[in-house]
Amino acid sequence: MKQVVLAAYAKGNPKPSDFRIEEVPVPVAGEREILLRTLWLAVDPLIRFSLDEKLLSGATRMELGAVMVGPTVCEVAASNHPDYAVGDVVEGRSGWQEYAVVAPDQSDYRGPPRKVDSSLAPVSTALGALGGPGQTAYEGIVNVGKVKAGETVVISAAAGAVGSIAGQIVKVLGGRAVGIAGGASKCAALLDLGFDAVADYKAPDFADQLKAALPDGAEVYLDNVGGDVTLAVLPHLKRGARMPMCGFIAYYGVGMEGPGPDHLPGFYRQIMAKALEIKGFAGIFAGKKGLEDIAGWMKDGKIRFAESVVEGLDAAPQAFSSVFSGHDHVGKLLVRVAPEA
Amino acid sequence: MKQVVLAAYAKGNPKPSDFRIEEVPVPVAGEREILLRTLWLAVDPLIRFSLDEKLLSGATRMELGAVMVGPTVCEVAASNHPDYAVGDVVEGRSGWQEYAVVAPDQSDYRGPPRKVDSSLAPVSTALGALGGPGQTAYEGIVNVGKVKAGETVVISAAAGAVGSIAGQIVKVLGGRAVGIAGGASKCAALLDLGFDAVADYKAPDFADQLKAALPDGAEVYLDNVGGDVTLAVLPHLKRGARMPMCGFIAYYGVGMEGPGPDHLPGFYRQIMAKALEIKGFAGIFAGKKGLEDIAGWMKDGKIRFAESVVEGLDAAPQAFSSVFSGHDHVGKLLVRVAPEA
Repeated sequence: MKQVVLAAYAKGNPKPSDFRIEEVPVPVAGEREILLRTLWLAVDPLIRFSLDEKLLSGATRMELGAVMVGPTVCEVAASNHPDYAVGDVVEGRSGWQEYAVVAPDQSDYRGPPRKVDSSLAPVSTALGALGGPGQTAYEGIVNVGKVKAGETVVISAAAGAVGSIAGQIVKVLGGRAVGIAGGASKCAALLDLGFDAVADYKAPDFADQLKAALPDGAEVYLDNVGGDVTLAVLPHLKRGARMPMCGFIAYYGVGMEGPGPDHLPGFYRQIMAKALEIKGFAGIFAGKKGLEDIAGWMKDGKIRFAESVVEGLDAAPQAFSSVFSGHDHVGKLLVRVAPEA
Repeated sequence: MKQVVLAAYAKGNPKPSDFRIEEVPVPVAGEREILLRTLWLAVDPLIRFSLDEKLLSGATRMELGAVMVGPTVCEVAASNHPDYAVGDVVEGRSGWQEYAVVAPDQSDYRGPPRKVDSSLAPVSTALGALGGPGQTAYEGIVNVGKVKAGETVVISAAAGAVGSIAGQIVKVLGGRAVGIAGGASKCAALLDLGFDAVADYKAPDFADQLKAALPDGAEVYLDNVGGDVTLAVLPHLKRGARMPMCGFIAYYGVGMEGPGPDHLPGFYRQIMAKALEIKGFAGIFAGKKGLEDIAGWMKDGKIRFAESVVEGLDAAPQAFSSVFSGHDHVGKLLVRVAPEA
């Protein structure tokens, strides 16, 4: 079987040559273990934090040569554990490899592999709308952003896994969703998903587009990006606006100590001038309630999931690297490692 | 009479040569106007925003040659207005001059000059503990920070007008107050005011001092500073900590477009990693309730005001400039323009 291992710690944005593909024997499940066959793997930008030689507080540094970590959807190929049967589809964090042995009894704080209900939606949505990104969107819009009907919500990285769901949740709540994305095709996809207005941060007239999309400002800014996009949004926020913050991909490549854009004074000034309320959060707190609500909205046709699929484990390093340079995918970026049965 | 006018727009931190002292005739009060004789003038770092050639959004740019704006405590020297009698002491924003004519009916959003009750405390406290700085401290600790008994609160610029009151309010509420200030004498003054622990940001072992002062982290950080001090504090905040933010003096000299410390990535990372809740605010919202509470605590001996006095209008430019380079004063920095009657 194949697996992707870390060949070099990332400097700045990760590149395909930071990874290496190795062939190893398929492992064997021991007592109370299960053998998973990877179907889908999620390209998760947060993994970047584990690829730094100089560690960020909180992240776990990967060893060189170790199998890349990351969320997956797998089929149980063999089971020595009473809770899992061969053929079950589960979501877990078994990494970038074709097979993995997992001990459900020894799971970390994320819990044992979670069974995926394939009757609801394609199992790949367990990595997107019905997984971490969906929870993050829900937490940001519902619990932290506390979006109310009639409010305008700006969303950065709106074509991403989180943003594309977040904008649709805004619409469910009766708000106005304004998405920021890079490129005309992504912006068109957002309008198709129901966003009320969009602004293309790669367009020369981005500032004008943003102004036109926000004639009366915004009450909430779901920030996933930071950097120039955020600095462009801040002046459009209303006094007392809420800014749930779930990511800052503009800075992931900078590293803990590295130089970054010298934006802090302007950022601070806007926090003060607008009396902004900023709240960092992680999606995990949305919990089951968030996923149940999203599943219900999907069933009612109010929320559509968006996915972009890359074929084969070999393509994972390139797909991962592309996330940091403004790729062209809409929705959750997935690697199909093996076809579903 | 003398007045201080703006001679040059500030570049970076203001310097005394940005100002000029002029002699002009004492003005005469017209119909429904009052003539004020300045007793005290407050050195207010926020004025920095009005001294930039490139304006910040929200601030009003001063014209070159105009009299410096700023809060004052004055005695009514002549009155053509029924609400004010000669001898009344008022707090207003009559600027850096020995006399000023004010039209109470044409006041801005701050309202007409506010009469000062001299029975409660020295009238100069209308510019400090019982004025804007007191309101800011109250708003930050009580309304935005929502400090509860048993919580640890870190305060930057703790020896300043806001910080010195804020720490004492923390104690009134049953919290633990940790102050950050520059220099051993300021730190000693904070302990004398009742702070539980201090850290000297100018000391070579600042990081160790901070660690020792915060063995269990902190629930709240009242930030008045930004910059390196804030980046040093962030790692000590507990998950979900609140960060009421009422100023960022580290960046005031940077200007809207100027280069600044490239701190934003680290700042963002901590917002996320700690799920911080940051809220910009201005003290004015604390309103009368805040001032009444502070006055009551002062009467009960629970809060002491701290002031540092510089003598004479001529000294104002130097005093103002010193605020941006880490001066040695404790409490509200005041210029005594004329002796009280």
